[in-house]
Amino acid sequence: MSKYKDLKQEAYEANMQLPELGLVLFTFGNASVVDRSRGVFAIKPSGVPYKKLKAEDIVILDYDANVIEGAMRPSSDTKTHAVLYKHWEKIGGIVHTHSTYGTAWAQAQKDIPIMGTTHADHLTVDIPCAPPMSDEMIKGNYEHETGFQILNEFKNRNLSYEEVEMVLLGNHAPFTWGKTVNKAVYNSAVLEECAKMAYLSLAINPDAPRLKDTLIKKHFERKHGPDSYYGQE
Amino acid sequence: MSKYKDLKQEAYEANMQLPELGLVLFTFGNASVVDRSRGVFAIKPSGVPYKKLKAEDIVILDYDANVIEGAMRPSSDTKTHAVLYKHWEKIGGIVHTHSTYGTAWAQAQKDIPIMGTTHADHLTVDIPCAPPMSDEMIKGNYEHETGFQILNEFKNRNLSYEEVEMVLLGNHAPFTWGKTVNKAVYNSAVLEECAKMAYLSLAINPDAPRLKDTLIKKHFERKHGPDSYYGQE
Amino acid sequence: MSKYKDLKQEAYEANMQLPELGLVLFTFGNASVVDRSRGVFAIKPSGVPYKKLKAEDIVILDYDANVIEGAMRPSSDTKTHAVLYKHWEKIGGIVHTHSTYGTAWAQAQKDIPIMGTTHADHLTVDIPCAPPMSDEMIKGNYEHETGFQILNEFKNRNLSYEEVEMVLLGNHAPFTWGKTVNKAVYNSAVLEECAKMAYLSLAINPDAPRLKDTLIKKHFERKHGPDSYYGQE
Amino acid sequence: MSKYKDLKQEAYEANMQLPELGLVLFTFGNASVVDRSRGVFAIKPSGVPYKKLKAEDIVILDYDANVIEGAMRPSSDTKTHAVLYKHWEKIGGIVHTHSTYGTAWAQAQKDIPIMGTTHADHLTVDIPCAPPMSDEMIKGNYEHETGFQILNEFKNRNLSYEEVEMVLLGNHAPFTWGKTVNKAVYNSAVLEECAKMAYLSLAINPDAPRLKDTLIKKHFERKHGPDSYYGQE
Repeated sequence: MSKYKDLKQEAYEANMQLPELGLVLFTFGNASVVDRSRGVFAIKPSGVPYKKLKAEDIVILDYDANVIEGAMRPSSDTKTHAVLYKHWEKIGGIVHTHSTYGTAWAQAQKDIPIMGTTHADHLTVDIPCAPPMSDEMIKGNYEHETGFQILNEFKNRNLSYEEVEMVLLGNHAPFTWGKTVNKAVYNSAVLEECAKMAYLSLAINPDAPRLKDTLIKKHFERKHGPDSYYGQE
Repeated sequence: MSKYKDLKQEAYEANMQLPELGLVLFTFGNASVVDRSRGVFAIKPSGVPYKKLKAEDIVILDYDANVIEGAMRPSSDTKTHAVLYKHWEKIGGIVHTHSTYGTAWAQAQKDIPIMGTTHADHLTVDIPCAPPMSDEMIKGNYEHETGFQILNEFKNRNLSYEEVEMVLLGNHAPFTWGKTVNKAVYNSAVLEECAKMAYLSLAINPDAPRLKDTLIKKHFERKHGPDSYYGQE
Repeated sequence: MSKYKDLKQEAYEANMQLPELGLVLFTFGNASVVDRSRGVFAIKPSGVPYKKLKAEDIVILDYDANVIEGAMRPSSDTKTHAVLYKHWEKIGGIVHTHSTYGTAWAQAQKDIPIMGTTHADHLTVDIPCAPPMSDEMIKGNYEHETGFQILNEFKNRNLSYEEVEMVLLGNHAPFTWGKTVNKAVYNSAVLEECAKMAYLSLAINPDAPRLKDTLIKKHFERKHGPDSYYGQE
Repeated sequence: MSKYKDLKQEAYEANMQLPELGLVLFTFGNASVVDRSRGVFAIKPSGVPYKKLKAEDIVILDYDANVIEGAMRPSSDTKTHAVLYKHWEKIGGIVHTHSTYGTAWAQAQKDIPIMGTTHADHLTVDIPCAPPMSDEMIKGNYEHETGFQILNEFKNRNLSYEEVEMVLLGNHAPFTWGKTVNKAVYNSAVLEECAKMAYLSLAINPDAPRLKDTLIKKHFERKHGPDSYYGQE
């Protein structure tokens, strides 16, 4: 029996949430979960429809994207996950989807502006949209470079991946992460909802202002940090 | 056994309607129901997913938001509910959601204009959007002040909470209420549908006029007041 | 046992299709079916939620909207149905909904332009939007006058109710009809889909032309008239 | 027993996927599958609701649209399928829908621009929109000419039907195809999703650029051609 059975099961269950939440069509998405103690992560195999996916199909890799266990080819986006796990040490799970509204903003090459408290309950800044990659990066080790495009965007904007757990890749689609893979899945749905609401708000009122700083601070601190009072913990 | 068992059950059932009606994602909403004879209300616990919610998890509080019974922390919006119950004595239930179109109008900081009879069947004025709160109110007792922001908006506009059972909080989201919690839930769905229809009508025809007064009066009186002839009572 | 049992059952089943097709929220709609041989029609009772509706609740009336059989109050829109049955003798059923996109066009007070073959498969002209009624009509016998507003609009535009089986009532919502109530239900769904497609087409290209006459003629005649070759009859 | 039993079953199953994927309302669509060895194809009968459709209802025809087997009248679009099978010899299946967003672009008479990698994962060019047909073609053998309108558009644009497996027919709706009918069904859903995303992207940012060439090439080659590394084969 595989010593990664539980890890595969966790990755399987996270992946299966994506179609349930309406975030993926066909195979357009993938979730992975990391085991920091063993230095490996588990990810969906490439191109397998969710209806046919089984826990034992999940592929185990190290942070350099070498396959450790698994008969199937891993997700084509595997190297992006590997780079993020390698450099952002406190991430426990990563999700990539082509969810409709999030992808529409990515294709528009625009940050999703923080317009209300739904957004501020989760992050204090616009959801960043990294620019499309350089031709050199695209022609090179593409999915590996995609990871660096995200890392660099966070560095350039001076953002913390522990505070901002989501990004749009320009012309491509969203990536989200979190301390656990369930949080990453949750963040994918939050991003999609904020993307839809921001789109509608600006359609209703093109001059609608961004959320003011005091409200951003208040709502974020209700849910996060030492004085949070949301939830049961 | 709890002497609030029935009240908790009623609050539980009202809360469970919100995801069924497509009005909440994850835990982004809450419903409460009041027992006027005992001076308490029952509300959803904070951050508990609807799938896991049980009737016994519901928290009982007085109108000053003191917990009377319940092991869990109440909804983070509890103080807003408390203020409304304390000052609007004929309210039987309150609902708060971040429903997509309602929230989009709140983020746009615009009243939802009365464009048709669907709206006029329920209220005779635009659905009011209260402005975002002052920095002082936000930094103070935020959820408590949120209640006052709603009370003050109704006072300033000279609106009756018995006639207008819904409001948008600017940059935030809708609150609705009613003589019963079921009416409050119903009003949340009505608000969302009116929000979507008004958005679409103005997208189709930016010059579309508001509903004329005779039609507003006629449709409201079909459903409300001494000469109403809608429904079975 | 009621001698109208079958008629009530037919009306019941037609009404139950409306929420299944996503055309009504709560009680915002009603379907009726006529029995020409007996000069009566069967309609949904007013304000009864679809989940609780039973076949025996259906109300039977004559063309002057006098109740012939039924313990419940009929739909508040009953007089509109009665007027249409009285004057348009070949109608077998009528449906009224507040479906989202159809109502948005009604609120925009615009005809739904014929933009493609989906529309032309069903009618050869724009879906007419009757103007809001005069204050006199509204203050008078409102639902009765609503019927005449529809009749007059068809007269003014020189439209045949046998060829054009749908209308928008300005500021209100769609009415559809047909030789059978099932056709009327079908037409309600067709109207909603054409309303959504026309909205999107004009959002994509504000200069998109209406469908040209040869295509209108061709597609309508595929489905209707002596040389039709669509379907199995 | 019919010697086309398996072919009918395959066509039946493909047709039944269309309502499941939300791509057809009522009977507004059809799928067909070809048997190249026997020179026949199997298509949905005309006007039969999906709920009532049975595998044995499927009609078998040759490439000149002569019925070989089947008691029912074939889809009114049958001649279009026949023309495509006759001239594009490597097609295994064809799907026609009136899916909402795809049809909206067709009615707008606009190509669906390639705005992101979701699109580029499937084709390297805009989804072509063929212009509405000439009056002569419409008044003639309409569905037969519809096939030629598609063939000619591909010829004029110098497109390969093996690389670009979808088209919009101006004022009408999408047609898709593939080496198998399942691929054709898949392409219909991909077209609809790309249509929705492109619409939203341009609504968010009217100046959003098309995807740059290096990204188009990269994403297409990940999934297609000798160096593809997507999926399990």
